[in-house]
Amino acid sequence: MKDIKRAVEAAEAEMIRYRRSFHRYPELGWTEFRTSSLIAEALEAMGYDVRVGQAIYGEAERMGIPDAAILEKAYQRALETGGSEVYMKEMKGGYTGVVATYQLGSGPNVAFRFDIDALSILESDDVGHAPNQLGFASETTGLMHACGHDAHAAIGLGTAKIIMEMKDELKGIGEIRLIFQPAEEGVRGAKAMTESGALDGIQYAVAAHIMGDLPLGLLICGAGGFMATHKLDVTFTGQPSHAGAAPSDGKSAMLAACTAVMNLNAIPRHKRGMSRINVGRLEAGTDRNVIAEKAFLKIETRGEDTEVDAYMGLYAERIIAGAALMHDVDFTIEPVGAAICAKSSAALTERIEQSARKLGCFDQVLPQSEKAIGSEDFTFMMDAVTRSGGQAAYFLVGAGGNRGHHTRTFDLSEKAMIQSAELFSELLLDLSAERQPV
Amino acid sequence: MKDIKRAVEAAEAEMIRYRRSFHRYPELGWTEFRTSSLIAEALEAMGYDVRVGQAIYGEAERMGIPDAAILEKAYQRALETGGSEVYMKEMKGGYTGVVATYQLGSGPNVAFRFDIDALSILESDDVGHAPNQLGFASETTGLMHACGHDAHAAIGLGTAKIIMEMKDELKGIGEIRLIFQPAEEGVRGAKAMTESGALDGIQYAVAAHIMGDLPLGLLICGAGGFMATHKLDVTFTGQPSHAGAAPSDGKSAMLAACTAVMNLNAIPRHKRGMSRINVGRLEAGTDRNVIAEKAFLKIETRGEDTEVDAYMGLYAERIIAGAALMHDVDFTIEPVGAAICAKSSAALTERIEQSARKLGCFDQVLPQSEKAIGSEDFTFMMDAVTRSGGQAAYFLVGAGGNRGHHTRTFDLSEKAMIQSAELFSELLLDLSAERQPV
Amino acid sequence: MKDIKRAVEAAEAEMIRYRRSFHRYPELGWTEFRTSSLIAEALEAMGYDVRVGQAIYGEAERMGIPDAAILEKAYQRALETGGSEVYMKEMKGGYTGVVATYQLGSGPNVAFRFDIDALSILESDDVGHAPNQLGFASETTGLMHACGHDAHAAIGLGTAKIIMEMKDELKGIGEIRLIFQPAEEGVRGAKAMTESGALDGIQYAVAAHIMGDLPLGLLICGAGGFMATHKLDVTFTGQPSHAGAAPSDGKSAMLAACTAVMNLNAIPRHKRGMSRINVGRLEAGTDRNVIAEKAFLKIETRGEDTEVDAYMGLYAERIIAGAALMHDVDFTIEPVGAAICAKSSAALTERIEQSARKLGCFDQVLPQSEKAIGSEDFTFMMDAVTRSGGQAAYFLVGAGGNRGHHTRTFDLSEKAMIQSAELFSELLLDLSAERQPV
Amino acid sequence: MKDIKRAVEAAEAEMIRYRRSFHRYPELGWTEFRTSSLIAEALEAMGYDVRVGQAIYGEAERMGIPDAAILEKAYQRALETGGSEVYMKEMKGGYTGVVATYQLGSGPNVAFRFDIDALSILESDDVGHAPNQLGFASETTGLMHACGHDAHAAIGLGTAKIIMEMKDELKGIGEIRLIFQPAEEGVRGAKAMTESGALDGIQYAVAAHIMGDLPLGLLICGAGGFMATHKLDVTFTGQPSHAGAAPSDGKSAMLAACTAVMNLNAIPRHKRGMSRINVGRLEAGTDRNVIAEKAFLKIETRGEDTEVDAYMGLYAERIIAGAALMHDVDFTIEPVGAAICAKSSAALTERIEQSARKLGCFDQVLPQSEKAIGSEDFTFMMDAVTRSGGQAAYFLVGAGGNRGHHTRTFDLSEKAMIQSAELFSELLLDLSAERQPV
Repeated sequence: MKDIKRAVEAAEAEMIRYRRSFHRYPELGWTEFRTSSLIAEALEAMGYDVRVGQAIYGEAERMGIPDAAILEKAYQRALETGGSEVYMKEMKGGYTGVVATYQLGSGPNVAFRFDIDALSILESDDVGHAPNQLGFASETTGLMHACGHDAHAAIGLGTAKIIMEMKDELKGIGEIRLIFQPAEEGVRGAKAMTESGALDGIQYAVAAHIMGDLPLGLLICGAGGFMATHKLDVTFTGQPSHAGAAPSDGKSAMLAACTAVMNLNAIPRHKRGMSRINVGRLEAGTDRNVIAEKAFLKIETRGEDTEVDAYMGLYAERIIAGAALMHDVDFTIEPVGAAICAKSSAALTERIEQSARKLGCFDQVLPQSEKAIGSEDFTFMMDAVTRSGGQAAYFLVGAGGNRGHHTRTFDLSEKAMIQSAELFSELLLDLSAERQPV
Repeated sequence: MKDIKRAVEAAEAEMIRYRRSFHRYPELGWTEFRTSSLIAEALEAMGYDVRVGQAIYGEAERMGIPDAAILEKAYQRALETGGSEVYMKEMKGGYTGVVATYQLGSGPNVAFRFDIDALSILESDDVGHAPNQLGFASETTGLMHACGHDAHAAIGLGTAKIIMEMKDELKGIGEIRLIFQPAEEGVRGAKAMTESGALDGIQYAVAAHIMGDLPLGLLICGAGGFMATHKLDVTFTGQPSHAGAAPSDGKSAMLAACTAVMNLNAIPRHKRGMSRINVGRLEAGTDRNVIAEKAFLKIETRGEDTEVDAYMGLYAERIIAGAALMHDVDFTIEPVGAAICAKSSAALTERIEQSARKLGCFDQVLPQSEKAIGSEDFTFMMDAVTRSGGQAAYFLVGAGGNRGHHTRTFDLSEKAMIQSAELFSELLLDLSAERQPV
Repeated sequence: MKDIKRAVEAAEAEMIRYRRSFHRYPELGWTEFRTSSLIAEALEAMGYDVRVGQAIYGEAERMGIPDAAILEKAYQRALETGGSEVYMKEMKGGYTGVVATYQLGSGPNVAFRFDIDALSILESDDVGHAPNQLGFASETTGLMHACGHDAHAAIGLGTAKIIMEMKDELKGIGEIRLIFQPAEEGVRGAKAMTESGALDGIQYAVAAHIMGDLPLGLLICGAGGFMATHKLDVTFTGQPSHAGAAPSDGKSAMLAACTAVMNLNAIPRHKRGMSRINVGRLEAGTDRNVIAEKAFLKIETRGEDTEVDAYMGLYAERIIAGAALMHDVDFTIEPVGAAICAKSSAALTERIEQSARKLGCFDQVLPQSEKAIGSEDFTFMMDAVTRSGGQAAYFLVGAGGNRGHHTRTFDLSEKAMIQSAELFSELLLDLSAERQPV
Repeated sequence: MKDIKRAVEAAEAEMIRYRRSFHRYPELGWTEFRTSSLIAEALEAMGYDVRVGQAIYGEAERMGIPDAAILEKAYQRALETGGSEVYMKEMKGGYTGVVATYQLGSGPNVAFRFDIDALSILESDDVGHAPNQLGFASETTGLMHACGHDAHAAIGLGTAKIIMEMKDELKGIGEIRLIFQPAEEGVRGAKAMTESGALDGIQYAVAAHIMGDLPLGLLICGAGGFMATHKLDVTFTGQPSHAGAAPSDGKSAMLAACTAVMNLNAIPRHKRGMSRINVGRLEAGTDRNVIAEKAFLKIETRGEDTEVDAYMGLYAERIIAGAALMHDVDFTIEPVGAAICAKSSAALTERIEQSARKLGCFDQVLPQSEKAIGSEDFTFMMDAVTRSGGQAAYFLVGAGGNRGHHTRTFDLSEKAMIQSAELFSELLLDLSAERQPV
């Protein structure tokens, strides 16, 4: 019988190398050409069946795709920084992400999901910031892995390797499916993959998040408290005119937009629980002396549960339509992201807890948590699996203590990454063992 | 040949008596039961053909009619304060006003219009205020003739008397038509009368206004500068709910109303000229802890010309509809008043100037004036007459110097009233003379 | 040893009589002259030391006092409907409420609090509505006991009677203090009484609420989930001017008020938990053609905890000041009500549960509940007692099933009232028994 | 006696060459390095005393200066496109513009002002657009002379040349001062020059505007109807926070900005005359899920007269301060432009009319016009001269018929340019002749 500890040790150095490589060349959602292609290459080399591009989701399912120019620029940069063109060419147009599968034996089919995209954040140049000290800080000005998805991708590759190492012990599992999801930031990728069948036939689905703001050694086995969310891009289009000579000839997108902002923020609180609304970005008009023709808004709603978020989203649409009607301007509402509400299955959470205790690598193991942890689009996958009778869970791994996600100095202890891969693997072993005679 | 000065002198005391009587018992628009019935009685006694009630306008033409309870209460008060029931009973339901006609000879038909309604203003109890000193202050708390329509009504009766006295000199006139119009305040009555044909067949139409804030002895022969206006009553109806327990169950008429107010005031200025918008009254909601079900707004728009006002009115309707859409509430828009833009005919203004100079009773006679003087619904009558080829004019008679209209201490010199009646009469004589061999 | 069941039975008819009498003559907060005086008279007759008027709280502590005219009118109505003038005269100016005490023996001092005020709701004239059928519907048009405080007052009198009946069994209690609190609606009375020392020296404080929307037979022993709240009356005072002739001469209280309403509703949600904001009533301006001089707003904020409510209150004040600054108008903010957040003490809740189970009169006994039940100013009393080392609890008694509080057809099963008095009394017996040798 | 027609003919080709050169290399306000230096070089060569840089205005007087990087980039471009470095180096930091003087004889001192800056407009690439056909379209993408200031500068140089040619006929003039003003767009340059004394000692000041939308051959001798204006840049600075996790930790510059926009547009109309307000550009926030830290607004106010504009400006400042107070954010208000109201002096306008009729080159000569023509900062110079007892005028020269200013296809007939120089020169001759014996 193979030893998991040894398998983990064997994967460790490569995981760190991958994580730092991903960190150095961060890529935004739907442009993870380099990241995806290197993942695909590595997985294929390990023996997995690898699918990329339009094989894993269609055009219609995607939301919040960047402009063609941005896609192209990112593609070129990926080529220049070591992306593997053989896989990349299938991802042209933003079809990033990887699904790798392997038939281990017979038993339940299990999916692990890892998200891989970075953020539009300028990495700190502080010398005390570890990526600067160790020379793997972002080489793309303005982009940064400030939410740990570099580590998530590396955990996926490490886990993939350990699984192959341990595959003889995993005969009680049917198919293992490793989902490397693009565009989790902005909650765009999971919905597309789920609607394209990425979770079909799965009995157990698990994902995890490295938590820079929880202490190293802490594990929360089953997260709940995800807020449902809608992301909307709204454009108002009126008519420009000279603000001095002919203000009444214009149709003011500025007035429509500002009225919308005030009313969106004023949507009455929902009786069922917490709601959120934000207009995070507003650009309107051009010159000082011109009635604004265009206004563009980036909006998000959230709700403590899916119903509250739906209420916010519906109300927001009415407000936008009403603001446009008022000022006789046109409008478009483009959905660019969404996540729903979901909770980790109690039974699967308990198994994770048992596996973790068995491993002994965590100082503190907490069960189910209801702490609100923002929005996460793995919820679509959780929902799909549980609705078809399976179980899903999401665990959180402490990685530092005091490092805020989405900040310029976000960092993580790479040890948490190793622990995570170990836990994914041990869980798979334990699920397999149940099905096999000892 | 009769002497006009003598005829005026003979009418003087009665005019003053009438003016003070009207001042003492002020009546709001569409409730001038006492005022109208006494006018009708007097005119009939003089020999005029008198029409009242639904004989002078129909139900459909009226706007801004008070509630039945208010009409009834005013009716009772009119009865108690000397109204003439024989005429009043035809005015039930708010059909106030009087049209009196007399066929003088053959020639152009001439209409003089006099408005008769009072305001919701509490008359000053200052002992220095003339109506207090002379004992004819308002007996109806909260109502007051603070715009001089008491004098206008008296001028009409005085002019009527002088005309009868001078009728042998007026053979060059066809029909003289004296229009005592209700509900000028809130610009409601003229549109109804005009649409019901009150100006049909008229070649010359003239009205006048006593100006408390212009010096006695000053005459402006032809006023322009009337702003066009719309008056709207708007109601939003949503759904109440408990603001603590279930704010999301409500539909907030409060939010709709306040959004409407902000956007109404923000309607872009018109390139053609001055515009105005006002929400003068807003009532919304009931209790502190209830999402407001109802909101009620009193709105007016104005424009330097009819097109500017139309732009304001149309924009206002879109805003109201948009605000309702935003918050999922119902709305009604009720037009309760309107006036258009009009200018005195140059030719008729010149005749007035000649008649005034001939009389010699004014210290200063100014021609056409463009000074903005608010809104006035006689503009509908001016428009009707000029569009059918006739001429119309509106003259202003200084009556004091420093007394603001619509204030609690508004007052006027009764001498201006006498001058006005004299000028109406002289103008008629001069129009008649043109047609007759000397 | 006396039997509590018998004592309760003896009090039953009188409780029902009192409740119906209070229901028939409902009185708003700070005007409970009739109610308070009859309570005082009854308690004095039972042998309690009774304090009323400025003996129980000072002028400075009160909030949200009605106008003098309203106080006077209510006073007259109380006189005409059987109020006891000897007590009422001490309550002139709105000093309503009663505090009755009795020294039972030695041991902990216990306070029971009963609220007594009614609401501005027009009682239904539906023949199926019990008060109509039984002839005790409100005789004061527009006022109604629609929240069960008529029953609360009756429970207080019933409990007072039972205590006197059982006083020999209550030697283990020091002082029993019965607090009949005015003005709970609008959360005004408890703060005043608490600041004036009404809870000084108390070890156990208990209050209860009849729940028309919970089934008869259900008891919730310890309520939590009270939202903290602020109630504010805001007035903006600008300058009127003619909206057509001189809009720029005015200072618009309308614009200040509507801007405030929009921004108040747009206060960002708080991270700690649920918040609420409502402008329940807004009145602004007078006439359509006048820039509004005055605007009056009734505002409330709420928070899931005291900190969230404090955030809302502080933010609201800034918004009001900012709106006034914008439009150069003056403003006043008058606090007219407040409640804080509090939870029932676990230990006392457990005792209530034990007493209830002992009584056996409830079908279902639930422990502590976190269900949000709006705001309640007994929280000030709970806070005062627990901060000085005592215990406080608030229990809920099901009284019907499906009857919404604050509706025109609110009603309750009078049996719930009897059960409540029984539970107050049994609790006191049990607290006493602990201290006494059996 | 020299012939003016001949002098004009002699200058014609050079004027056209200059105009096309300026058109080809347009420069924005305060960056007219090439334009100014070539003007200075040419004027010096003609014999004028030339002053540039800080000799003509100080640092403190300037408004709306571009960033250092923009200034530097424009400077480099000027060097590369033929600017004269000897003059340019004194203009570093944006001290553009030229003042040239010559003492002609004795008599009144006369100033002619020409503005020289271009606009941020992308010139049309339509082949029918004359500058494309003739090969002098803008070589700087995104900048264009779309308001005719290229022609104004050329008129100034042509006039300068004619004056020198005719100088023997101009002994009745004291000093001729030719002011080439930077930054008229955004109304920034004139105030700085005026405050620095550019008009000191001047008895007659004249400027002109080529009108692409008036027919060639039309002259309006004295323009009025300039609106007074303020240009403001406003920044709100709050605090960012995560919109999902901690909205209450932020301070929303977005809410402050949108409230400001709504209220700015809602500033009550002024009784004295037309007012304008526009927020032409608003940028707020960064990411969708972040409470906006920053908001930036480009605002302008206008008024039919200086008092109305002052009212708008003052009200706007209060609104901005109030919006900041509401949402606890900081703000800055930076004045970046201003113009006042002024009318052409009647006497000087009449002289221009006489000179024009004498020349005979205009088909139609109209006197004083009140037509509103936007804002123009030459009004500061008009005001300075008339307040010290002199006369000022502004004439308009038709140049095409149907070409909108500030559009991508704006163009002008160069013949209008020649007519303008001719009129400036003839006026000077006529002013001189009055002082000389014939």
